[in-house]
Amino acid sequence: MTQLVSRAEGVRFDELALATRNHGMQLEGMRYDITPIGMHYLLIHFDIPEIDPSSWRLRITGCVKRGLELSLDDIRSRPATTIPVTLECAGNGRTAMDPRNVGQPWGLEAISTAAWTGTALVGILDDCGIRDEAVEVVFTGADRGIQDDVEHNYQRSLSIRECRRPEVLLAYEMNGGALPPQHGFPLRLLVPGWYGMTSVKWLRNIEVVDRPFTGFQQAVNYRYQRDEADPGVPVSRIRVRALMIPPGMPDNPSRRRTVDAGAVVLRGRAWCGTSPVVRVEVGVDGVWHDARLNREPAEFAWCSWSYTWDARPGAHRLSCRATDADGNVQPAEQIWNRLGLGNNLIQEVPVTVR
Amino acid sequence: MTQLVSRAEGVRFDELALATRNHGMQLEGMRYDITPIGMHYLLIHFDIPEIDPSSWRLRITGCVKRGLELSLDDIRSRPATTIPVTLECAGNGRTAMDPRNVGQPWGLEAISTAAWTGTALVGILDDCGIRDEAVEVVFTGADRGIQDDVEHNYQRSLSIRECRRPEVLLAYEMNGGALPPQHGFPLRLLVPGWYGMTSVKWLRNIEVVDRPFTGFQQAVNYRYQRDEADPGVPVSRIRVRALMIPPGMPDNPSRRRTVDAGAVVLRGRAWCGTSPVVRVEVGVDGVWHDARLNREPAEFAWCSWSYTWDARPGAHRLSCRATDADGNVQPAEQIWNRLGLGNNLIQEVPVTVR
Repeated sequence: MTQLVSRAEGVRFDELALATRNHGMQLEGMRYDITPIGMHYLLIHFDIPEIDPSSWRLRITGCVKRGLELSLDDIRSRPATTIPVTLECAGNGRTAMDPRNVGQPWGLEAISTAAWTGTALVGILDDCGIRDEAVEVVFTGADRGIQDDVEHNYQRSLSIRECRRPEVLLAYEMNGGALPPQHGFPLRLLVPGWYGMTSVKWLRNIEVVDRPFTGFQQAVNYRYQRDEADPGVPVSRIRVRALMIPPGMPDNPSRRRTVDAGAVVLRGRAWCGTSPVVRVEVGVDGVWHDARLNREPAEFAWCSWSYTWDARPGAHRLSCRATDADGNVQPAEQIWNRLGLGNNLIQEVPVTVR
Repeated sequence: MTQLVSRAEGVRFDELALATRNHGMQLEGMRYDITPIGMHYLLIHFDIPEIDPSSWRLRITGCVKRGLELSLDDIRSRPATTIPVTLECAGNGRTAMDPRNVGQPWGLEAISTAAWTGTALVGILDDCGIRDEAVEVVFTGADRGIQDDVEHNYQRSLSIRECRRPEVLLAYEMNGGALPPQHGFPLRLLVPGWYGMTSVKWLRNIEVVDRPFTGFQQAVNYRYQRDEADPGVPVSRIRVRALMIPPGMPDNPSRRRTVDAGAVVLRGRAWCGTSPVVRVEVGVDGVWHDARLNREPAEFAWCSWSYTWDARPGAHRLSCRATDADGNVQPAEQIWNRLGLGNNLIQEVPVTVR
């Protein structure tokens, strides 16, 4: 995490290798309420583990009255829920930071919405009986590797209170089919409202613990820090953001957009993990206009918005910004933290109208 | 296509934006005979088009006795075949070229195998009746954009002879489900044995023509050229190549591998679009050993191979190379063409054994 790269130097090959493995959702994917399978963004810290579902077991251990060992059939036979949930990578938008640490070099495409099916985590925890001294629950994935010289399985913890939220799932289906290997087959944690790092994939162990978890991905990574010396505070819920489907057609390879003059319906999505989105505005050459926002009944899924723009020939700069029910609005200038996490800088889409 | 980038400068942001949109298959995906949905590599020149399948029609026009207009139901009611086919992007491995033109910056992961279902193209052409003056067939996709200042829909042509191969399909299913939007929904051409640029996605028109097609993606792009002045020759069938699943576990973000000492089963795949793969060798620190090759009955799908390596502590350099039935073997040094197409340079995987 000590490698720095600046825009003047271009992009490091390490970043490029990550970009090719871990893909975003093409922004035109925002046209779908539910992101089609395979378009959902993906961030894998290490390799995709190879798991035999017939011998796989989930173990629940630690500060519980009765430990449990569950097969996939056991989990599938429990009460099931399907909910649409928008996930966003905590590093989304990171390439706007300059200079930045070498890490997953997202533009703005690390955002997607799937229909997740699973069983409530709280039901399983209640069956085990959480003991009074418990303070957190640690989730361990089967994926293992080295980061900052620390060898570890990917692990994250959640407070008991968060684990008791009824919408926190152990998910085994995505968009009505089995989880694909790259999304955590056979089972993953799903924590609606939080950035994606919390939703541990390839889950194999749940341990209830009596003190705060200090593993790498909790205590070192995924923290809002000023600098390396700052212990920082943990990244948690998704900050308010709106994105636009870039209108018109692209150039290859620059992706610059050309739009035909006339009425252009600009469309996009907006989401927030802490409170509902209440307003989306579209900026045209720096002037803001209210978009039409379609509030969705699904609490944890993005909403759609649209705005009809009278496009006149010439070069224009489009943007969009969302406001949540607590009055938070996306910033025009980002105050960056050390790892470029949780940013929600306003998107800018330069276009040429002809 | 005139922007050059050299390794010393790092990677251009244009390349990074393409890398994040168009993803490869994580190389550990070679463990699956059929690449799971969503892991299949993807190269989209422009945007993913939005297509309403109920109003979509395929038109067959040009030098035919009877033009045809077919709905998706019409196509699905025709005789169907399912075949496993390995596709590779013609630009796979391009980042090993230095300097190179700005384009899709693949490492080695633009390779996948899907089970494709569709109906034979030749059946539809025979129903239309190809007229004697016909020389080629032009396939037009719904995707449109600008490349090298040329605005066009993505289009490619094939000779009548190639179109008559029974395994050339109009495919509407991938791995048993409807084509995902990003892979060409509702219908794509599938030309087994050829690099992926031939298998036109979002197909909407098939035109039988009486002279060679000179569209951008045929006459300008996808050609083996020495330099910009050289008209070159068209890229066609896939050259022989073997790849290895990088063993051990990765570092994040460098992807460097650490392997435990002892017997390590190295596994991978090999394929060729012109003749069968007859030999795969594994290189350990420059010494070649024959791998065990499992010849597949499927003519157009990759074969698996394995080699058990006695890994001793220290730094090692692993590689693999394949030979086809015509005696072609992968090169240790690549002679690059202008656009870095059709290369099959030997893969090298540096590892540290502990």
